Amino acid sequence: MVKCMSKPLEAIGIDLGGTKIEIGRVNQNGELLQSIRFATNSYKGPEKIQEEILAAVQKLQSVTSYPISGIGIGVAGQIDAVSGMVHFAPNLPNWRDIPLQANIEARLNIPVKVINDVRAITWGEWLFGAGKQIKDVVCVFVGTGIGGGVVSQGNLLTGYSNSFAEVGHMAISLEGPPCTCGNIGCWEALAGGWGIAQQAQQAILHETSKGYLLLKLSQGNIKDISAKTVVEAFRQGDPLALHLMQNVQQALVAGCVNLINLYNPECLILGGGLIDGVPELIPYIDEGIKQRALKVATQNLRVIPAQLGKQVGVIGAAAVVLHQILKDELKK
Amino acid sequence: MVKCMSKPLEAIGIDLGGTKIEIGRVNQNGELLQSIRFATNSYKGPEKIQEEILAAVQKLQSVTSYPISGIGIGVAGQIDAVSGMVHFAPNLPNWRDIPLQANIEARLNIPVKVINDVRAITWGEWLFGAGKQIKDVVCVFVGTGIGGGVVSQGNLLTGYSNSFAEVGHMAISLEGPPCTCGNIGCWEALAGGWGIAQQAQQAILHETSKGYLLLKLSQGNIKDISAKTVVEAFRQGDPLALHLMQNVQQALVAGCVNLINLYNPECLILGGGLIDGVPELIPYIDEGIKQRALKVATQNLRVIPAQLGKQVGVIGAAAVVLHQILKDELKK
Repeated sequence: MVKCMSKPLEAIGIDLGGTKIEIGRVNQNGELLQSIRFATNSYKGPEKIQEEILAAVQKLQSVTSYPISGIGIGVAGQIDAVSGMVHFAPNLPNWRDIPLQANIEARLNIPVKVINDVRAITWGEWLFGAGKQIKDVVCVFVGTGIGGGVVSQGNLLTGYSNSFAEVGHMAISLEGPPCTCGNIGCWEALAGGWGIAQQAQQAILHETSKGYLLLKLSQGNIKDISAKTVVEAFRQGDPLALHLMQNVQQALVAGCVNLINLYNPECLILGGGLIDGVPELIPYIDEGIKQRALKVATQNLRVIPAQLGKQVGVIGAAAVVLHQILKDELKK
Repeated sequence: MVKCMSKPLEAIGIDLGGTKIEIGRVNQNGELLQSIRFATNSYKGPEKIQEEILAAVQKLQSVTSYPISGIGIGVAGQIDAVSGMVHFAPNLPNWRDIPLQANIEARLNIPVKVINDVRAITWGEWLFGAGKQIKDVVCVFVGTGIGGGVVSQGNLLTGYSNSFAEVGHMAISLEGPPCTCGNIGCWEALAGGWGIAQQAQQAILHETSKGYLLLKLSQGNIKDISAKTVVEAFRQGDPLALHLMQNVQQALVAGCVNLINLYNPECLILGGGLIDGVPELIPYIDEGIKQRALKVATQNLRVIPAQLGKQVGVIGAAAVVLHQILKDELKK
């Protein structure tokens, strides 16, 4: 794919999150060459933030002798597939129907592509990470919520309204708990970071004596108990945290088994904060899948960790535009 | 698609089931022109059945003046995507690793394509039925089990080992019941025909007095209570059947909500014996999806019945080869 390129190719990837923005130069091999990171300060509003992004991009452009072929931007939110309009972003207050793609493109006069952040991560892991050269890939990222992406027969799937593979909102229990989306029993309400925190808090409200260590680790503020607190207490052998983590393991296996039966990938890539914090979940999930998913779907299946680490957001956002340019180049 | 064809096109579709075989001539508009149907008599073994299929195809060929461009065969079983080998077919004893595609092709010298029966049905509904001209389609067929197919961005997805969208084995309950596949809480164990029958039988074993009508309808043989019996008792206002059907409705909604969040189609097509028998399930499922699936995935979603009826197996099997020929023709 790369061999036929006449000159080295670079793109800029932008990971636009609720707390920080990371902007980097990425080459055609998926290597992050240089990056700038700054706080989002979302109170400044969309216009000011876009100006800060433009300034950072220009700074990166000024230090490279190669032309920047395009800019990819990953945003945690609901994005229009064609226009790259940010309809809604839960962690960026006041971002409602912001034509981010058109705005940046107009100012810099190079191709810009805005996509959902989990989709960007999937692009990154597929083109340059654990899914390299594989045509049927499912990526699952377990963080505060659970996000995912699906590559099938060499196409990253987007769906009819750009919301393919909302895996965190696959319900695996008819009994609940309630999810933020209005449904009950969603995967992320059971095994995502916010769901784990909520279950821990409710367990302690129900029987305070069992919450001694969790409360201690959160300085006595029950509302401050997070999934990270639960993992820490689990590492210290706390019985309540152990019980909670057993439920999480069970839910992760049930959800991943479903994804194997529904998407039939060659490779399941697992990443995100919870997986990074408890990497032994991966062999546990692998074992559960081999036991419970359909044999026809697991014979050559590999369950592996994501590879690109914290840089995946920036590399993935750049991967979107690099992929398009390399594809166009091949057609010439 | 059809306009540029130089001459009328016909294909033969074969629906190879455990109890009957249906073979028909289908034209490029998806019209079934003529068909032959006979009992499978699976005790005769694969060789004899293949001979009977060949004889029927030759009979159909002899009465048309148009050349037959190809043969599509839908089989309920596990099929190799490339070779069309029938690895395993639960309703056809002794069919283990039968090279059906190669055998028929060698004898008739025209292109043959063997695919899974639910995949064939999806082809039929997509190209010639309720999903015509739509690029993002999910088909769900609720019969003895629950089968499905997914078209995304104009491609019918097959997955890495030809088992994409095994929707019947998506678990929606962590509590069970056990499924034939070895997992628990699978959709078809809760809402497929065999699952409904099993739940009815168990409810009666648990409290015989409530099973009066169901037992009467099955001539007193509890093992003969089927999903059809439950629907019949439900129509007569039987309280147990009503309770069972409420559970089935709830499970159907939960599963369809998941499919919308996971596959993001423009159109969900519902068919199969249970849906045909209780068509009011469709508006009920539609309403449930609108209430509980993600808003971004339901804004323009349509939930509609399958259109091709009992002929869908034959038309769908023919559609597979017609689609390929029309596509090749367009490339010329």
